[in-house]
Amino acid sequence: MYILDDIEVRAREELFINIHPIQPGGRLTPEAMKALIAYGDGYSTCDWCRKPFRLDKIKRPPIDEFHAELAEFVGMDEARVVPGARRGFQAVVSSIVRPGGSVIVSSLAHYTEFLAVEDAGAIVREVPLNQSNIVTAEATAEKVEEVRKETGRLPALIMIDHFDYMFGNEHDVRGIAKVAKEYGIPFLCNCAYSLGVMPINGKEIGADFIVGSGHKSFASPAPSGIVACTKEWADKVFRTTQMVGDVTRRKFGIKEVEMLGCTLMGGVLIAMMASFPAVKERVKRWDEEVRKSNYFVGEFLKIKGNKVLSEMPRKHTLTKVDTTESFDVVARRHKRRGFFLSDELKERRIVGEFAGATKTWKLNTYGLTWRQVKYLAEAFQDIARKYGIPVG
Amino acid sequence: MYILDDIEVRAREELFINIHPIQPGGRLTPEAMKALIAYGDGYSTCDWCRKPFRLDKIKRPPIDEFHAELAEFVGMDEARVVPGARRGFQAVVSSIVRPGGSVIVSSLAHYTEFLAVEDAGAIVREVPLNQSNIVTAEATAEKVEEVRKETGRLPALIMIDHFDYMFGNEHDVRGIAKVAKEYGIPFLCNCAYSLGVMPINGKEIGADFIVGSGHKSFASPAPSGIVACTKEWADKVFRTTQMVGDVTRRKFGIKEVEMLGCTLMGGVLIAMMASFPAVKERVKRWDEEVRKSNYFVGEFLKIKGNKVLSEMPRKHTLTKVDTTESFDVVARRHKRRGFFLSDELKERRIVGEFAGATKTWKLNTYGLTWRQVKYLAEAFQDIARKYGIPVG
Repeated sequence: MYILDDIEVRAREELFINIHPIQPGGRLTPEAMKALIAYGDGYSTCDWCRKPFRLDKIKRPPIDEFHAELAEFVGMDEARVVPGARRGFQAVVSSIVRPGGSVIVSSLAHYTEFLAVEDAGAIVREVPLNQSNIVTAEATAEKVEEVRKETGRLPALIMIDHFDYMFGNEHDVRGIAKVAKEYGIPFLCNCAYSLGVMPINGKEIGADFIVGSGHKSFASPAPSGIVACTKEWADKVFRTTQMVGDVTRRKFGIKEVEMLGCTLMGGVLIAMMASFPAVKERVKRWDEEVRKSNYFVGEFLKIKGNKVLSEMPRKHTLTKVDTTESFDVVARRHKRRGFFLSDELKERRIVGEFAGATKTWKLNTYGLTWRQVKYLAEAFQDIARKYGIPVG
Repeated sequence: MYILDDIEVRAREELFINIHPIQPGGRLTPEAMKALIAYGDGYSTCDWCRKPFRLDKIKRPPIDEFHAELAEFVGMDEARVVPGARRGFQAVVSSIVRPGGSVIVSSLAHYTEFLAVEDAGAIVREVPLNQSNIVTAEATAEKVEEVRKETGRLPALIMIDHFDYMFGNEHDVRGIAKVAKEYGIPFLCNCAYSLGVMPINGKEIGADFIVGSGHKSFASPAPSGIVACTKEWADKVFRTTQMVGDVTRRKFGIKEVEMLGCTLMGGVLIAMMASFPAVKERVKRWDEEVRKSNYFVGEFLKIKGNKVLSEMPRKHTLTKVDTTESFDVVARRHKRRGFFLSDELKERRIVGEFAGATKTWKLNTYGLTWRQVKYLAEAFQDIARKYGIPVG
C-alpha cells in the first residue's frame, strides 16, 4: 500500500502493538488527527492573525489561551511552543551561555543538549552517575565545584534530564534544583520524557526552565516542543528584537529573537492544542502506566537470563533490558541471527523493538491497555519457551 | 463546526477562493494530505531508522533519496530540511557570522533575517531600493563599500531575497551574486517566495546558499523549509559535532550542530516528500501563474483609483495594491468602515484579503484556475460598480 511511488502507508499504530522506545507518547489522539487534517495547509494558523502579529497572540483559533494554559499546566510563568525540545535547549543556552562557558549536563544527557551547548561555543561538563545510574544532587554539586576550581568560574547553566533517554531512570531534579539555587546557577529541567505523560510542575521542582517534547510525550506531531520559564527569565530568553534597519529604520519589536518570531504555524500546533485536554487527563493516570510497566517487567524477568538495566522498581514506562543470556543465546545459533526475535514478535503483531538487537535494547509500554500489556508479557514468555528458555 | 471545544474546523481552501498573500503556495496537495494522515504520529519517520541514526539517512520511507533529489532540484550540492526558512537563515548566519560582524540584507528583508543576524550578535546593513523598489547589484556593491569604509571589514554575508514579501518584486540576485563573488563574500539567496513555485537553480543564480520555505511555497505543512549549499560550504554549515563528554567520552559524530541533529521528524517531512512530484511539475507552469497574475492586475486597474505598488508587469503572483482612492473612499463613509470590502468579498466567497484594510494591502493569485481568476477580477469590478466607482 503506497501513498505515492515509494512512500508506503504507515499503519503500525493501527495494526500492531508498538513498543518502540520513543514513539508511544507521541501517538496522536483522534482530536489531534482531526486538527491535522483541518489545519494541514502550510500557514493555516494565520487566517485570523492580527496585530501584534505573533503566533502566540492569535485568538482564533485560541492560540493565546493555549499558551497561557500551557504555562499553568507546567507550573511556570511563560511558555512557548517550539519545533522540538532541542529548539528549547538552543533558545535557553543561546540566551544565557557565553562562548567558552560551561554547562553542567548529565552523563546520560541527550545528544541535542550537547549540540545546543556546542552551537553556543560552550562546553559540556558531565555529572557522573551513581551506581544505580542516577544523577544525584551531591554529584551535581561536586561537579559544579570541579568546574569552578578548574576554570575559576561557575558553570553558566545546569541542564539535567528529569527522566533520561537511555534507562528511563528518574534523576534527582528537585535536589539538583536546590544545588543550583545555592550556587545561583540557572537550572533547566529537561522533561522530554515526562512532560505530557506525568504531572510536571516546574516551580515545585524548583526549575528556572522546563523543556518538553510534543512528538515524544505530548501526543503531538513532529516537530513540536515546549519551552517554559519563570518570570525572572522571561525577559532574557523571550527577549524581543532590538535590531533597527540602518536604511529603513525598520523595527520588528514584538518578535522574539530566540523564537525567530513565530514558531509552529499550522497543523502541528493545532494538533498539540487538540491533544491538550486528553494530555491533561492522561497525566493523572501516570501511576497506572507505571503499574503496567512494572507488571510487564516482572513477567519479563521470569524468563531465565533476562535482566533489566533500568532502576527497579520502574518509575517510567521506558525500560532498558538485557537479553544477552536469553534471546541472544538463541540468536547466536539461529540463521536469522537477532532478527529471529523480531520475526517472532511481528508474527504476534508486536513491533517497535530494535530489529536484530538481542543483547541490550529498550522498550516502552506507555499507553498499552492491561490486556495488551498482559498479551505482550505472554508473547515474550511464549517465544522463550519455544526456544527452550525456562520461564519460572 | 468544531473539532474540539473552541477549535473550529478550517475549510477556507475548500469553501472559498483564498487570496491570502502568504497562504496559496503552502496549500497541501492531496498526496501531502494523505501523507500527513498516515504519518501524523510524532516520531513516525523513525520506524526504520538505522545506523548512522540521522533523519536524512533514513531509507524507508526514502528520506535519503528525497534529500539528494532536493539538492538537485535547487541546483545545489547539499540540502537539508529545516523547520521553516528562518531556521535556514539561522543555521547559515550562526555558522559564518561572528559577533560584531555585519550582514548585508535588503531594505525589504524579511524580519526573520533580522532575527537570525541579531541572534548571532551581528548587525544588519540594508541595501537601499531603487525607484522601482528593486535591490540592484550596484546598490549592493555600494553598501559593501560603505560597510568596509565604516568598519574596516567586509560584511560576513550577503543575504538577499529573490522575491520580497512586501511587493513580490524580483531582485537582481544574479547580479548580486557576481558582486558577492568579486568581494569574496558568501551569498545567501532567500527563495522563500520562489522555491517550489518557480524553477530555481542556485548555481545558475551564483548563490552559495539557497533557503526556501515549505509552508510558504512548497505545498507543505508548517513548520518546514529547506537550506541548501554548494559543496564548498557544506562542511561549515552542516559540520558535525566535535563535542566530547568529559566523563563518559561520548561523541555523537554524525549529528550536525546547526541542524541540532534530526530536524523534521514525522508527517511534516513525509508530506513535503509527497508534494515533491507535484511541486516539480508545477514550477514548470510558473509562466502561466504569472500570466494569470498580470491578467488579474490588468482588470483590477480598470477600477478607477486602483493602483498597483508592485513592479509592473508582474513577475510574481503576490502583489501589493493601493485602493486608497477607490475602496477606501467608500470605507470612509460606510458604517462597517473598511470591513465593507471584506463583507462584499466574503459574500462572493472570496477570503484572504487583510480584513478591514482598504488602503494598501496584498493579495496572491497563486494556484487559482483561469476561471477563478476571472471570477475574482469580476468580483472586484462588481463591488466597485455597486458603490459607484467607475470601471473603465
